[in-house]
Amino acid sequence: MIKKILIANRGEIAVRIVRACAELGIRSVAVYAEADRHSLHVKKADEAYSLGPDTVAGYLNAHRLVNLAIATGCDALHPGYGFLSENAELAEICTRRGVRFIGPSAEVIRRMGDKTAARQAMVEAGLPVTPGSEGNISGLDEALAVAEPLGYPVMLKATSGGGGRGIRRCNDADELRRNYDRVVSEATKAFGSAEVFLEKCIVNPRHIEVQVLADSHGNAIHLYERDCSIQRRHQKLVEIAPSPQLNDEQREYIGELAARAASTVGYENAGTVEFLLDHDGNFYFMEMNTRLQVEHPVTEEITGVDIVAEQIRIAAGEPLSFKQEDIQARGFAMEFRINAEDPKNGFLPSFGKITRYFAPGGPGVRTDGAIYTGYEIPPYYDSMCAKLIVRASSWPQLIARAERALHDMGVYGIKTTIPYHLEILKSEEFRRGEFDTGFVEAHPELSEYHVRRPTHELAAAIAASIAASMGM
Amino acid sequence: MIKKILIANRGEIAVRIVRACAELGIRSVAVYAEADRHSLHVKKADEAYSLGPDTVAGYLNAHRLVNLAIATGCDALHPGYGFLSENAELAEICTRRGVRFIGPSAEVIRRMGDKTAARQAMVEAGLPVTPGSEGNISGLDEALAVAEPLGYPVMLKATSGGGGRGIRRCNDADELRRNYDRVVSEATKAFGSAEVFLEKCIVNPRHIEVQVLADSHGNAIHLYERDCSIQRRHQKLVEIAPSPQLNDEQREYIGELAARAASTVGYENAGTVEFLLDHDGNFYFMEMNTRLQVEHPVTEEITGVDIVAEQIRIAAGEPLSFKQEDIQARGFAMEFRINAEDPKNGFLPSFGKITRYFAPGGPGVRTDGAIYTGYEIPPYYDSMCAKLIVRASSWPQLIARAERALHDMGVYGIKTTIPYHLEILKSEEFRRGEFDTGFVEAHPELSEYHVRRPTHELAAAIAASIAASMGM
Repeated sequence: MIKKILIANRGEIAVRIVRACAELGIRSVAVYAEADRHSLHVKKADEAYSLGPDTVAGYLNAHRLVNLAIATGCDALHPGYGFLSENAELAEICTRRGVRFIGPSAEVIRRMGDKTAARQAMVEAGLPVTPGSEGNISGLDEALAVAEPLGYPVMLKATSGGGGRGIRRCNDADELRRNYDRVVSEATKAFGSAEVFLEKCIVNPRHIEVQVLADSHGNAIHLYERDCSIQRRHQKLVEIAPSPQLNDEQREYIGELAARAASTVGYENAGTVEFLLDHDGNFYFMEMNTRLQVEHPVTEEITGVDIVAEQIRIAAGEPLSFKQEDIQARGFAMEFRINAEDPKNGFLPSFGKITRYFAPGGPGVRTDGAIYTGYEIPPYYDSMCAKLIVRASSWPQLIARAERALHDMGVYGIKTTIPYHLEILKSEEFRRGEFDTGFVEAHPELSEYHVRRPTHELAAAIAASIAASMGM
Repeated sequence: MIKKILIANRGEIAVRIVRACAELGIRSVAVYAEADRHSLHVKKADEAYSLGPDTVAGYLNAHRLVNLAIATGCDALHPGYGFLSENAELAEICTRRGVRFIGPSAEVIRRMGDKTAARQAMVEAGLPVTPGSEGNISGLDEALAVAEPLGYPVMLKATSGGGGRGIRRCNDADELRRNYDRVVSEATKAFGSAEVFLEKCIVNPRHIEVQVLADSHGNAIHLYERDCSIQRRHQKLVEIAPSPQLNDEQREYIGELAARAASTVGYENAGTVEFLLDHDGNFYFMEMNTRLQVEHPVTEEITGVDIVAEQIRIAAGEPLSFKQEDIQARGFAMEFRINAEDPKNGFLPSFGKITRYFAPGGPGVRTDGAIYTGYEIPPYYDSMCAKLIVRASSWPQLIARAERALHDMGVYGIKTTIPYHLEILKSEEFRRGEFDTGFVEAHPELSEYHVRRPTHELAAAIAASIAASMGM
């Protein structure tokens, strides 16, 4: 078994991995930029090593991180999400230097990172893909020729892109002409590759993704799906498991597809197969994420599987500790990304000191966070500073509990997405379980809430005087 | 349905009830002694009313609490646990004045509170009871005559006693002679009744209790058992569901017994049937608690049932929302009582200001607490200030997760039972799932731990200098 793990990440996901290590009796090693010296992952890990004054470079230096893993006696490295988590080179360096990389092989990371290669692999595995170009596009003329029979709108995408970048929607041939050079140039700058391809645009789809687990003994299973349709500018805000928008037949269908896809590409470790679901009920493979995802807790809550612990066991060469038929989903779970942002002000980052933090509690409430009273959120990183996860036995109970838990969670000193989430929960469409990726854009009024100050102290004072006058 | 509830309690259980109200769309009214002005239940409730300067009397004044419920427009009252929760008069006053009492009828509370009457009712329901006197004992001579055929040790108990008070173990006739007058006098003083009875003493039993739910439509079900054998001086410290010491046959057997007992006595609402389990595998009815219990969350965690919400629905006259066959236990859960006490110093109360509080998080962790950074625990009440509840799919995973979560929970400024719980978890007997009510007394070494200061800052500093010298 693995004895010591270097966690090549920061914030809440580093804390999450420290917790998994502790439960498995594995020693954890944190790393931190100096700006992160007071971060929770530094306090929680068994050991912590500075990466120096640069705020980001240290988290992105594969050679140095592997050196540090070896120097500190680690036999494995967990990349978390973001940073180098989908960097094939890091996986390669780890393997070459005898440190287990907790994730799939470099070859699979590379293949799934190349969007046209991934698409081709999925076609071979029998998955439905969005109609589009066969492989990359050689130039504007080919783009126009491919787009014509597909029908507009189309999506022009960078082959090496990801995370919502290097993508343009083109509503007609003119827009395709205007955008072509721009996307090629963006792709070259951001991803170091000029390659682009073209797909039919699925308008306002549901974003449905399936969690898979595959071991080194040829077993691949799925842990059902998550509905991540509530997004703002391609960034997920709320994630739900299972999707309230699927029936059991659809659920089994995409689960089986995703597990088969993992098998076909020789996948190992935890991964996610993302699909778009159009309003006619058609699924289209979108991409495969070859890493742990932010929203993995909702799947853990409904299945009882500790995904991070499984990742570590798989990397240690152990077979999966359960079969597909052992996995039973129970109830519903929802995750809210608590971002240090001001939704009333265009979701502008709102970094700074958390003057008071009240963690929520009670039944069905989980927090995965990196915040505490007195913590100063550094301005150099992602604005997501905590995740609130709720679990309930039914969809209506989930909504009620989510509302209660969001009120229960007190983050003072900075602005957060908490009041925005409360507005989402009030939406009738959302409560009916009917929403697609156009939801946030279609509802600009969600940002027009009034923040109420806690009134309990005033209320208590008035109440006390009433009670006194009643002689109670 | 009920619209507004007065919560006749304080601390964590009042917070728990506020949360249930919020999820059901019911308005919550808190009450507080002035010493509790900054308590979390006051902040969380929709309204809060002062009971005046007396620290305890207000929480024990049934007439005044019901008056306040009516004056504030409440249509129901929840008594929590402790205080007036097993006071038949409160239930009676509520009923008389048209406020729904969230609990069983005054008659049932009274009958179950009279230990010899409860015993008789259980014999009629076919439950095994501890061999003992038939009804109350008329004097010392009868006590000696009853004890002889039972065999020593015997337990001499106040008929109206409870909570571990008014009970003496007598190892031989001499001890019975010496204790008789003392118990009668204690009973008179503490419970206002001189009645006593006698039972065979089950030496170092396991404490196994079954959660039941019964509605006003004649339905009674059980939610499986809890193992509360880890006690110190009859006060529970750690509670587990399900018991790792029962097999499925025993589990079904006592579950069925408890549901039948509830039916037979015409029970309504949530209740607990407590059993002793001796080392030969025999169960004996001990007592029935006619209220919500401190340890109800472990049952919620394994069954997914929100017991407090069910209590409210039952009081509103709704039928149970599930049948016995719908209840499926999954995994294991364990609750730790986080008491403001110093285990190294005879569990002496350690009230005062919580200078910093770090709530634990991550998978399988729930907190039900009444503490926050800056909260000053008043010295007038029970020392239990929070509960840490963990959930896992297997017993070994539960142990590992519990250890992690206890380390994860940081309560500074006062002494707590956290380090003591960590010692319990290290015990080989406990890890094997073998323990009885004699466990704590048999292991005085559990209090002999060394509290380590967090070393991460020192470690990080040393690590940084190593890293620097390596040119990393």
